[in-house]
Amino acid sequence: MAGVLARRKRPLLAIPLQISRFRALCENAGSRAGVSLIQGASRGLGLEFVRQLLERNAKDFVVATCRNPVKAENLAALKEKYPDRLQVLGLDVTDEDTIKEAANQVSKFHGPLELLVNTAGILHVENLVTPETSLSKLEKDALLLTFQINAAGPALVMKHMSPLLKSGGSREVPVIANLSARVGSIGDNKLGGWLSYRASKTALNQLTKTISIELARRRHPVACVLLHPGTVDTDLSKPYQRNVAKEKLFTKEFSVSKLLAIIDRVGMKDTGKFFAWDGQEIAW
Amino acid sequence: MAGVLARRKRPLLAIPLQISRFRALCENAGSRAGVSLIQGASRGLGLEFVRQLLERNAKDFVVATCRNPVKAENLAALKEKYPDRLQVLGLDVTDEDTIKEAANQVSKFHGPLELLVNTAGILHVENLVTPETSLSKLEKDALLLTFQINAAGPALVMKHMSPLLKSGGSREVPVIANLSARVGSIGDNKLGGWLSYRASKTALNQLTKTISIELARRRHPVACVLLHPGTVDTDLSKPYQRNVAKEKLFTKEFSVSKLLAIIDRVGMKDTGKFFAWDGQEIAW
Ligand SMILES: NC(=O)c1ccc[n+]([C@@H]2O[C@H](COP(=O)([O-])OP(=O)(O)OC[C@H]3O[C@@H](n4cnc5c(N)ncnc54)[C@H](OP(=O)(O)O)[C@@H]3O)[C@@H](O)[C@H]2O)c1
Ligand SMILES: NC(=O)c1ccc[n+]([C@@H]2O[C@H](COP(=O)([O-])OP(=O)(O)OC[C@H]3O[C@@H](n4cnc5c(N)ncnc54)[C@H](OP(=O)(O)O)[C@@H]3O)[C@@H](O)[C@H]2O)c1
Repeated sequence: MAGVLARRKRPLLAIPLQISRFRALCENAGSRAGVSLIQGASRGLGLEFVRQLLERNAKDFVVATCRNPVKAENLAALKEKYPDRLQVLGLDVTDEDTIKEAANQVSKFHGPLELLVNTAGILHVENLVTPETSLSKLEKDALLLTFQINAAGPALVMKHMSPLLKSGGSREVPVIANLSARVGSIGDNKLGGWLSYRASKTALNQLTKTISIELARRRHPVACVLLHPGTVDTDLSKPYQRNVAKEKLFTKEFSVSKLLAIIDRVGMKDTGKFFAWDGQEIAW
Repeated sequence: MAGVLARRKRPLLAIPLQISRFRALCENAGSRAGVSLIQGASRGLGLEFVRQLLERNAKDFVVATCRNPVKAENLAALKEKYPDRLQVLGLDVTDEDTIKEAANQVSKFHGPLELLVNTAGILHVENLVTPETSLSKLEKDALLLTFQINAAGPALVMKHMSPLLKSGGSREVPVIANLSARVGSIGDNKLGGWLSYRASKTALNQLTKTISIELARRRHPVACVLLHPGTVDTDLSKPYQRNVAKEKLFTKEFSVSKLLAIIDRVGMKDTGKFFAWDGQEIAW
């Protein structure tokens, strides 16, 4: 393990642990109710998933991944509150090596996962990506970066993590939940605009559906669902909240509690489906 | 124009024309029934679109684009047969400058387009892209390249060419037709596999739908449709024809004649829709 850490540019652990303490912590993992991995947990919905999972069940263990653990202050605060039930790992969805290494860490120290939630996603990135208001504003680099983070990213995480999803723990089956968006629905698209973001989420929907078919055939089947969280007050939606009616702008707390309620009910009959925060299925 | 050609690494014209002859040819363009642009015309379905458009109407003019005009022997042969009604331009969908330059050429010498067909697409590329039979075989670079060619490519062509689609010529409205594939349908996906190809076509479907909404609002509206050609005997399907029943493997001639019949009937009521070769709409 020291070798793995030494090879990395960024530390895998946000808060250094003595090896002996870390071992003890990991050995406990087997007796825990379940291990969930939240990918994209530095802020926004991902961070809130971590918080609620830790808060609601005193036994569950959470692996939280983010691009830069050292800077993830909110995760560090949670780690102080739940020192034995949270591990923070580095993972950048655009860098497959970091995904592979995070999967190695999970496999070595936590064994089977019961839940994987992919939340990392972009709508705007300063100086790089601005949601298009017309076709003339489509920029190749912005389109490709959005696709890489929002669609390719979660698919590569599924590639490396899905072998670890074996036992449902307290769940009927292990679950992969990917954060999509209603604007990724082609059938529901009446307004146009936001070309890159829409297409990236539509591609994510197809990747998830395709993967769900394969994972349903496994000896230990895994259910895969797509989730629309509603319009939620986070950094992602901030610049676009002006036209959102007050009662339609959700808090992170509300949205994640709704999404966790959906995840808790997921069985194999739901695999490959796309649900909104209120449990309604969304058309492709 | 000499300047534009001089700046290019690859010649824009497959067969050099004397400037005076080229001018005369271009001046005729205004009196022609209509100008169609077929993008991805070196072989396969694109080449067959060019051939049928030239054959069926003695007045129509066709601009055929391909990555490497110098090597496009089949287009050169058509150019010999129809010297005054075909122009071949260089266009690589992964290189936006070539798209822009091709649009400049069309705008300068042919005026409004009545039809744009985007056919360029990949399923396999030697040593780079192999359709995935399982999630474990998903390769980031192959996924991103497939997305770039099959989804970003046609969207960037629409960005630069759509301002040229103004008059329907003999058509009710000008038309953009993008070659998609039934396997890009999420709702129709029962088998899994081919992750990169599927997701790229699904993304193309969303991009086309999104753009169709914008182009329907223009003063000169343009209809955009997605087409599934059936399984057609071309280089693209060659390695995967083993499991296709003989009567379900179409010739290029048959498929393109069916697709042109659909395109000829397209009105604004059809915009944003996804049609199979037999005219049936395909679910998203
Ligand atoms: N908020 C909404 O209204 C809304 C609506 C529909 C769907 N969604 C979806 O819900 C998900 C979460 O959104 P949010 O509102 O929580 O967004 P957010 O507050 O902007 O958080 C985005 C998260 O993604 C991470 N991220 C970005 N690029 C990454 C990369 N290359 N590798 C790893 N992580 C990366 C960010 O990490 P850093 O801190 O390192 O940047 C951050 O943790 C997204 O997929 C979004 O599309 C949100
Ligand atoms: N054949 C089928 O069964 C089938 C089924 C469903 C959908 N489709 C779709 O129909 C379309 C045409 O397929 P096809 O069967 O005619 O394929 P094909 O015979 O393999 O021809 C592909 C064409 O795409 C061009 N191309 C590849 N990369 C390009 C790039 N970067 N820039 C510009 N052009 C590029 C190729 O040009 P080069 O000669 O330079 O390589 C070639 O002209 C594709 O979009 C395909 O996905 C085909």
